[in-house]
Parts: sequence; structure tokens; C-alpha cells
Amino acid sequence: MDTLLSAEAMSGRAAAWKREGLTIGFVPTMGFLHRGHVSLMEALRPRVDRLVVSIYVNPLQFGPKEDLGRYPRDPEGDSQKCAAVGVDALFMPENLYPSGFSTSVEVSGLTERLCGAFRPGHFEGVATVCTRLFGLTRADVAILGEKDYQQLQVVRRLVRDLALPVEIVGGELIRDEDGLALSSRNVYLSPDERKRALTLSKAMRAMASGGGDVEARLALGRSILDVDKLDYLEIVDPDTLQPATDLSKPTRAVIAAFVGKTRLLDNVAVAAV
Amino acid sequence: MDTLLSAEAMSGRAAAWKREGLTIGFVPTMGFLHRGHVSLMEALRPRVDRLVVSIYVNPLQFGPKEDLGRYPRDPEGDSQKCAAVGVDALFMPENLYPSGFSTSVEVSGLTERLCGAFRPGHFEGVATVCTRLFGLTRADVAILGEKDYQQLQVVRRLVRDLALPVEIVGGELIRDEDGLALSSRNVYLSPDERKRALTLSKAMRAMASGGGDVEARLALGRSILDVDKLDYLEIVDPDTLQPATDLSKPTRAVIAAFVGKTRLLDNVAVAAV
Repeated sequence: MDTLLSAEAMSGRAAAWKREGLTIGFVPTMGFLHRGHVSLMEALRPRVDRLVVSIYVNPLQFGPKEDLGRYPRDPEGDSQKCAAVGVDALFMPENLYPSGFSTSVEVSGLTERLCGAFRPGHFEGVATVCTRLFGLTRADVAILGEKDYQQLQVVRRLVRDLALPVEIVGGELIRDEDGLALSSRNVYLSPDERKRALTLSKAMRAMASGGGDVEARLALGRSILDVDKLDYLEIVDPDTLQPATDLSKPTRAVIAAFVGKTRLLDNVAVAAV
Repeated sequence: MDTLLSAEAMSGRAAAWKREGLTIGFVPTMGFLHRGHVSLMEALRPRVDRLVVSIYVNPLQFGPKEDLGRYPRDPEGDSQKCAAVGVDALFMPENLYPSGFSTSVEVSGLTERLCGAFRPGHFEGVATVCTRLFGLTRADVAILGEKDYQQLQVVRRLVRDLALPVEIVGGELIRDEDGLALSSRNVYLSPDERKRALTLSKAMRAMASGGGDVEARLALGRSILDVDKLDYLEIVDPDTLQPATDLSKPTRAVIAAFVGKTRLLDNVAVAAV
């Protein structure tokens, strides 16, 4: 496995692979890799000739009061995990953006609700970094986890709208044995916070399997939660992310909540009834 | 030459060419082609295996009071000109954007002055359509005329910032025999307006060849102009488009002015003195 430390090194390597006619798969991450990330790599590995993983804590997608400065890092552990899965290139740039960088990519509509309402500018940062990363890596296919469900749908939309030549695949949300959705931010949780964090996945499970209409399931979910601040708990149309009015088509239950100072996400497919 | 009428047809064709390992050149236009456009096609033709020209009057880059509805069109004449130059695919979509299109690309800084100050949203429309067109055509190299100098620099910047895998080439501004910079919009000019329109190229020529400092050359240019409304006349740094303070490095004289209801552009390189 090669470790590439600059945008130039990455784009040069990708261009060389393209000249050889090789297909390129790509997993964008912010590092501190867990089994969720590894599952994305494993899903893509057999589909492509060359597999790239990026680790970059993208300042553009953090608000001024968010956890950019203390986001957890483990470059050595990350590197070992990538090598074990058969990653060809680990792209870990110190600076991803060129001097005088002044371009942004914005997706309207999809980004205005849910996390977009609580993290102004977040999805513009995500859309911009993903577009640049897809260009640098020349990815034919990229995989993003369904844990960040709104992010996945935003990236799908920008790829379609800008006709970027990359296929976007959604990777299954991976949970710990106790049900907690895997996230690099789980490391922030104290033992007591972790117990209460489990109420997110319990609420998701209950809302997916329980009966009743949208309102009944939302009430059920809320009754289970033990969090410090609920940003949102909704059942939405998976494509538009607008609130679902009934359950006659497949929908998605989505949640964002703080436990202590840690903001956690979870979501689950709700089958049509 | 094949004429492709939908985004799907274009992207399918480009993907097939890429699978064959062919290189693709691209000339984006709004049609009503003149010798300036043809010179761009001729410049790219020997460099690529397949040459694509797009004709699309992009609503995103027109303001509500601008000439979108009356922009001149000549699909049959355009098609003949493209075929004569050896274009492989003429991409003339009726609708370029998919249903629910909601993504935009914005370049800050470079777009705020000059035409950007007079045409709010214009360069966002240009940046967005170019990004989508580069994706659909899978262009390895694209050429844009230097007549729209700010546009060229904005597109160069977004390609660099987003790491789009396309090389941007600037094509020389082509003039009519009387010196008028070729533009599809010249067809709007009455005989009297055309005479006065020539004062733009006369001013450019005088500012490039005349002596004196920045202020002296600006005064010289202004003394030559006979226009109805001057949007701007400036001497700028070619990369930043900020006003030049001296002529010790190469600069660019740029102008936008209305003659009658027709907005005209011109520019010229000013050699370092």
C-alpha cells in the first residue's frame, strides 16, 4: 500500500492508473477508522482494480463551534486497517486545497432540513470536498456509509446534477454489539453517556418494527429516547428527505441528538405497510 | 458527424469513447457560430481523437432582464460549420438539466468584479453549466475563447479547485476585418451602432500600444469610446482580475459596454513595460 500525502501525488497516481485502463474505487473518510469504514472498503475491494481510501478532516464541513480541533485521529492504526483490507493507496493530505481555493459546490433543497438546519454550511463543505476528491482520485465508483444518510443523498444528487463520472454506492450502517451505530465520535462518550446513546438505536428499531402510522411511530421513538438535546427525529421520504405523511411507500426514520457534548446520528429503513 | 439531443446520449457516447481509450476535446458554445468558434474547433481538432461541440443557450447564466429569449439561433448553419471542421459529435440538448436539478458551482473572488458586478448570478450559471458539460462529455481538454476573458479565468479556477480531469485552453480572440471582436450578439447591431461598436476595439488597440502608465492608458481608452453605457474599462492582473497598479508585469485591458441595447466585450493583452 502506498501512502500519498499531497493532492498532486494522488492525481498523478490516479491519472497513471487511468492510462493503464484500470478501474478505481474510492472510500472518503475522516479517519479514526472503525468496522463501518472497513466494511465499505471490503464491499468495494472486489469490484475495482485499484482501491483508494482518503483520510482528511475537512475544515469546510465544520462549524466554528464544532469539534474540528478535537476530532479523533489515529493515522498509524488507520494505515494498518487499510493495508489489511488490501487498499492500494491511502490518501492522507495535510492540505487538500490549493492556495487561493475559491470554488464551492452547493446542493439546495436536500440540504435545508435535518442536519442542514442545525449545521449551516456543513453540506456545502461536504459537497465541495467530495467533488474535489472524486476529481483527484478519478474514482469510477465511490462508497459512502448510510449512517450519514442525508450526506449520502446529497452526494448522490450532486453527482447526478454535475454528471460526475462516478457511481455512488451506499454502504450499510454498521452497529456495535450493543446496537450503537458505529461512529468515530463514539470515543467521546463516557460509560453513562454510552448507555443513554443506546436509546437512539433502540428508538430506531422500535420505529421500524412497531405498528401504527407516522405519528404513532414518532411518539414511540420519542418515548424511548434519553438524550440531552434532540436535533430532530423524523420519518422522511428517502429521496427527497421531506417528512413522510404515510407509510404506503418505503420511508426512513432519521435522528440526530446530543448525548453530553457528542452529536450522534442514526437511521433505519421503515418498510412500506 | 452525429447530433446528440440528450444528456444521456452524450454521456453514453463519451463513456463508450473512454472505454476505447480515445481522447476527447470539447468546445462549449451557445450556438450561432462564427469564425471565433470555428477557430476554437480548428485549434483542438488535431489534438484529440474525438471532438465534441455543444450548443446550449444556458438559462442559468442569463439575468431576468437579459436577452435569453431573443438570443440568436441557427441550428442548421451551426451544424454545417461543425461538420466542415470535422466535429465528431454535436451536442444540442433541448434540456440540459435533469428534473429536480439543484446543484450549483460558485467561484468567489474572481467573479465579483467586472462582468460579475453587472450580471449577478451570471458566473454561477457559467460555472455550473461548464462543470456539468465537462462531466457529460468526459472532455480531456476543453477550449474557451479569450473574448470572454473573465469567464475563461473563472473556468480555469473551478477546474483547478475541483480537480476536474480536464485541461482548459484559451483560444485567441478573433476579430472581424474592421476590428470588431466576433460575437454572436453582433447581429443585434444596426449599421450606426456597429460603427460606434468599433470604438471598443480601437480603444483596446490604443491602450495596448500607447505609452504611459495605467491611468494614462485608461484616459486614452475612454477618450476613444463612443458607447451608450460603459459598464467598465480597466487594466487588470490577468490571474486575479484585480486592477493593475503598474505595468511592470503583463496585464490585460478589459471592457464591457452597451451600444444601443447590445452589451459588447473586448480585451487585449498589455505587454509589460
